[in-house]
Amino acid sequence: MIKAAVMPAPGRAVEIREFPEPELEPGSALFKTIYSEVCGTDIHVQDGKLSLTPYPLIPGHANVGILEAIEGDLKDVEGNPLGAGQVVTFFDVHKTCNNCWYCLVAKAPTRCPNRKVYGITYGAEEGLLGGWSEVVYLKPGVRVLRLPEGVEPLTFIAGGCALPTAFHAMERGDMRLGDTVAVQGAGPVGLMCLAFAQMAGASKTIILGNGAPRLKAARDFGADVVIDIDGLSPKDRVEAVLGATGGRGADLTVEATGAPQAIIEGMEMTRDAGRYVVVGQYTDLGDVLINPHRLINRKHLEVRGCWGIEFGHLYKSVQLLPRLAARFPLAQMVTRTYSLTEANEALADVRAQRVVKAAIAPNGPVEIG
Amino acid sequence: MIKAAVMPAPGRAVEIREFPEPELEPGSALFKTIYSEVCGTDIHVQDGKLSLTPYPLIPGHANVGILEAIEGDLKDVEGNPLGAGQVVTFFDVHKTCNNCWYCLVAKAPTRCPNRKVYGITYGAEEGLLGGWSEVVYLKPGVRVLRLPEGVEPLTFIAGGCALPTAFHAMERGDMRLGDTVAVQGAGPVGLMCLAFAQMAGASKTIILGNGAPRLKAARDFGADVVIDIDGLSPKDRVEAVLGATGGRGADLTVEATGAPQAIIEGMEMTRDAGRYVVVGQYTDLGDVLINPHRLINRKHLEVRGCWGIEFGHLYKSVQLLPRLAARFPLAQMVTRTYSLTEANEALADVRAQRVVKAAIAPNGPVEIG
Amino acid sequence: MIKAAVMPAPGRAVEIREFPEPELEPGSALFKTIYSEVCGTDIHVQDGKLSLTPYPLIPGHANVGILEAIEGDLKDVEGNPLGAGQVVTFFDVHKTCNNCWYCLVAKAPTRCPNRKVYGITYGAEEGLLGGWSEVVYLKPGVRVLRLPEGVEPLTFIAGGCALPTAFHAMERGDMRLGDTVAVQGAGPVGLMCLAFAQMAGASKTIILGNGAPRLKAARDFGADVVIDIDGLSPKDRVEAVLGATGGRGADLTVEATGAPQAIIEGMEMTRDAGRYVVVGQYTDLGDVLINPHRLINRKHLEVRGCWGIEFGHLYKSVQLLPRLAARFPLAQMVTRTYSLTEANEALADVRAQRVVKAAIAPNGPVEIG
Amino acid sequence: MIKAAVMPAPGRAVEIREFPEPELEPGSALFKTIYSEVCGTDIHVQDGKLSLTPYPLIPGHANVGILEAIEGDLKDVEGNPLGAGQVVTFFDVHKTCNNCWYCLVAKAPTRCPNRKVYGITYGAEEGLLGGWSEVVYLKPGVRVLRLPEGVEPLTFIAGGCALPTAFHAMERGDMRLGDTVAVQGAGPVGLMCLAFAQMAGASKTIILGNGAPRLKAARDFGADVVIDIDGLSPKDRVEAVLGATGGRGADLTVEATGAPQAIIEGMEMTRDAGRYVVVGQYTDLGDVLINPHRLINRKHLEVRGCWGIEFGHLYKSVQLLPRLAARFPLAQMVTRTYSLTEANEALADVRAQRVVKAAIAPNGPVEIG
Repeated sequence: MIKAAVMPAPGRAVEIREFPEPELEPGSALFKTIYSEVCGTDIHVQDGKLSLTPYPLIPGHANVGILEAIEGDLKDVEGNPLGAGQVVTFFDVHKTCNNCWYCLVAKAPTRCPNRKVYGITYGAEEGLLGGWSEVVYLKPGVRVLRLPEGVEPLTFIAGGCALPTAFHAMERGDMRLGDTVAVQGAGPVGLMCLAFAQMAGASKTIILGNGAPRLKAARDFGADVVIDIDGLSPKDRVEAVLGATGGRGADLTVEATGAPQAIIEGMEMTRDAGRYVVVGQYTDLGDVLINPHRLINRKHLEVRGCWGIEFGHLYKSVQLLPRLAARFPLAQMVTRTYSLTEANEALADVRAQRVVKAAIAPNGPVEIG
Repeated sequence: MIKAAVMPAPGRAVEIREFPEPELEPGSALFKTIYSEVCGTDIHVQDGKLSLTPYPLIPGHANVGILEAIEGDLKDVEGNPLGAGQVVTFFDVHKTCNNCWYCLVAKAPTRCPNRKVYGITYGAEEGLLGGWSEVVYLKPGVRVLRLPEGVEPLTFIAGGCALPTAFHAMERGDMRLGDTVAVQGAGPVGLMCLAFAQMAGASKTIILGNGAPRLKAARDFGADVVIDIDGLSPKDRVEAVLGATGGRGADLTVEATGAPQAIIEGMEMTRDAGRYVVVGQYTDLGDVLINPHRLINRKHLEVRGCWGIEFGHLYKSVQLLPRLAARFPLAQMVTRTYSLTEANEALADVRAQRVVKAAIAPNGPVEIG
Repeated sequence: MIKAAVMPAPGRAVEIREFPEPELEPGSALFKTIYSEVCGTDIHVQDGKLSLTPYPLIPGHANVGILEAIEGDLKDVEGNPLGAGQVVTFFDVHKTCNNCWYCLVAKAPTRCPNRKVYGITYGAEEGLLGGWSEVVYLKPGVRVLRLPEGVEPLTFIAGGCALPTAFHAMERGDMRLGDTVAVQGAGPVGLMCLAFAQMAGASKTIILGNGAPRLKAARDFGADVVIDIDGLSPKDRVEAVLGATGGRGADLTVEATGAPQAIIEGMEMTRDAGRYVVVGQYTDLGDVLINPHRLINRKHLEVRGCWGIEFGHLYKSVQLLPRLAARFPLAQMVTRTYSLTEANEALADVRAQRVVKAAIAPNGPVEIG
Repeated sequence: MIKAAVMPAPGRAVEIREFPEPELEPGSALFKTIYSEVCGTDIHVQDGKLSLTPYPLIPGHANVGILEAIEGDLKDVEGNPLGAGQVVTFFDVHKTCNNCWYCLVAKAPTRCPNRKVYGITYGAEEGLLGGWSEVVYLKPGVRVLRLPEGVEPLTFIAGGCALPTAFHAMERGDMRLGDTVAVQGAGPVGLMCLAFAQMAGASKTIILGNGAPRLKAARDFGADVVIDIDGLSPKDRVEAVLGATGGRGADLTVEATGAPQAIIEGMEMTRDAGRYVVVGQYTDLGDVLINPHRLINRKHLEVRGCWGIEFGHLYKSVQLLPRLAARFPLAQMVTRTYSLTEANEALADVRAQRVVKAAIAPNGPVEIG
């Protein structure tokens, strides 16, 4: 029997349940979890804030582990065969159909209505389809990729889902060599945006956040300017960014807070004709009052919502992991790892922002061949 | 002496004043006005709603007329010499410096702080720098271009400043062959967006507006769907657009209303991962309450403010005038022309939307060589 | 038994062969052909010029017909059910995998190595997989779309594969409202580029071609300038385009000739910093000698190869068919239709350019419900 | 009297001549040269290979020095006043008119016909308008910018004109985070492209060059793969790049060689649907035979010529100098500095590629306030 942590219903604590070992269909595989991320989204799932989440469910959408049994041939995106014993991650987004108007005509696959996500939109009754489990069942069609040589599992999970999400945000923001970049929020997504902004050649990076561990991480990640929002009014925060950008505002600002009010500040701290990427508003926390004349029209601003990720974002960000790890103290982001039975503690720590990043190790330490 | 209509101060009626004929500096020219537009912006100027407007001023930023005296050599952008007697328009935007950070680094010349605009930011004390005047003084550096062969002055003024503004909005919205396009607002800018959307190969055009003359113009301009907003709730309006676009919303929506509340509807009537251009919020009419999760982030929406125009927008839209005029009843948009002394009546008619478009003919009928 | 025209081997005449009616797999369908295009590519196939073509094969990659038997549910890209008796086309490109590096990371699905094409890369031994057949077997996964209301089958086949190909070329060339556009070649692809350039708002269109029927079609399609290349040297042709574009060259030039030498002229007739799309070089007809300093570097030119089509190109161009047909004499392009037994005659006529466009009607006149 | 090195005519050695101190017009300034670059272009100038070069001329288009006398107010692009004693560079491109079709409509100012370049298109009879002079006369309108704090003059001149040129090439190539980048040529432009590709987040960099000093510099600059072309056939070179990129070729290849034959290899070593920037073909060294079917059309390739630089390229690349210098051994590129009287020796060393980079110090060591 396989143990997994299950969220039984909104507002409830996680329970450990046992499941039979899945039978393999052709094209499927078993994945022995080394680490599964505990993400802010998991808090939203526990709070019942996401519309498409079935309960009970096994959380865990960003995962790294070892391929166990494979039924049939499994290949990575470059056509290389995958084999048992390899350290891999998999793309949690599944069943993007490549068949609908959004996939084929709009080329906006993150808006495909058939899209399913491991650990978020699959329920426990459908199988071991989340990473807070000793074993994950990789359905046929799940995209698997190996970690690049030299990349530790802990390094990958330190990036977690923030890694491809931040990559997507930079792409969406048309990040260019020499841009000044402001990042609102110093949680996992904000910190990864900070790292990628530097990787992509920002001439200056500014991050706004709060909480000692996150602010320390922001400094350790090499931000040119770290702004503790707790000491400052919204106006002061905006002025701090203007002051750091010659009075103009950032070329590119990325919102990674989730707070609706941050939108106003973000627009104000972006330069005229600049770009503002909204990636943090993953759940509905209410409305915000904006002035469309002053903040959009007269500023000639571009505001770009950024939803979900595509496989390419995961692939490319994983390819960059060796360089990221060489330049930023990525693994340090994981303040603590937890056993399956400590999942509730992990959720509580993430909820209270006592940790920068939390990871669950359902099998304890795993030996890598 | 030269007669011009002057706005003495915010909230005041226009007065006819006399000015001495200007002396020509090298590179300057005199322009005998045939038509000067009466634009929604002139209402804002009269109401004191624009921050950079000095009073008293001579309104009139979109103009067509005859080149009179020229001091020195004057050439158009293609290097062709300009000469007295030619029917021309001129680019009302002046002194974009090509020297500042916005001009040179950001390449966002509409945000150049040195930018001046004939009829809007030049005061009457600085000279005959607005079109509601028998004669306009074209300062050195003002860009002059001839109307293409066969284009009547009335056709040009029917487009007026909406012509390059709508061109800019289409460019800003990355309008592509086959797009479905929704336009909010059936005033001059909205109608020109409707025309350009068809010119650029929309697969379907939808326009929302009110008032019998504007709705008739929308139909005459060939909109596939004309929605009278007066009969409908905001929800109904959105649903009308969704219904006309397979339930998805428009690929590209252009806001050309000026009403802050239109922003919410516009976001909702744009498809996921679509583009929304905000061009109508030219003055500050207050705030609007939006939900950034639902309308920006989850929709993966692009919202693009569109401020002012560059010379290229005027140039290219003027090049297209012969084709526009052949396809759309452009000149019909000018419901009435007014003499200088009827300027207050023209303003009142525009304010009350009794006309689709109004033009002042300061010299009465002008004979063209 | 079903009759189909088969190319037995390179260099051989087409033969009529009989095939048993295919058995339907789940998700498959039968398609009763109304028209199948005879395209320049079919000449290349007959000549053995394409590397991926298996022989014997049934040609016919652009087709319109009637859905007959359907096994299971078949839906179009918008999720609407498809049913027997409907007039449809289908996307000849099949099996683009959405699984490989080119599909997922590069997002260049026309370079997917798993891509198959009806009538080109499927052999007759694999089934009724080309349109020169009374019936075509639509494998599971083939994308089917209905013709828009009011569009005649002959209108669709007049566009043929040139319709989405030209759409792709315009997209690839970043065609913008107001561009001046030169098209090299007045065959089907060139003529459709000419039509789409006008649909997309070109300020001027120039086409270069030869042969009376094609030049007449170019004029009928409304080109501003039609240049008969037969009377002119390469230098004269370039100068004709420069002369029509203020001495600068076209903003966008599209190569649709297949002749390597056309590349030099095309580069020369494009303005500095303009865009040059190479879509016609579908087979290898040798090398061309170019000067990279003068034609690429100093010109600051963009040269964009354009290979194959994606489903979106077919979908969007089909959505535009009603507007295309209303504006251009599309159906007139089909100089003649042929029965299956006249396939060799059709090939000969296309080869000799005696026709602008040829179509095969394997079932003769088909009654549409 | 002021000493300057003058090229009297094509094919002739440089001579030292004396000029009177220039009188200052309003808006002009004097610049005391610290370093002036000796660039490959100067070899072309000496060889009479450039069409717009008047003789005699004072070479030196990339320069760093000290502002001396200023006539009137001089401000930088951010509006900050410039003053005597400051260490500055200036934009060698002058008189881009912002008035012509290329500047205003095409927005391609490097193709402006009025463009002049210090040290290249200004002759000695027009004044001290090249950097191989003790003093340079900065005409009104010349754009001056200060070196960022902590940047040594030698660091700037090590980048030289390759700094903004390579920045332009990266921009032109739409360089994106995670791209694999191949650079053809390990001269100054190639090395700066290598540096910027890393700055912009390449997942892998590959450089092809020859000569021990350049190959060493390439390694010192951190290229992942350094390919010595001397040992290899063109086919081998291409295969070396394919081998380093999973068999596909680079996402982005930059040509920085000047050799026409490099174009074929560059196209072949770029992946299908990739981007190829041609920046090195600055002079006409003849034609190259390419296969447009195989290398452009079927590859779905983008080939982008890259001519000259705009002010923004200089500004942004100078802003990045502190980060560049912290990461790459920039100053080491300057193998040797020369006095004015050693200018012929400097030219000979550059011609023979005995140096990676040469700089002339017309005033010897200059003390910086």
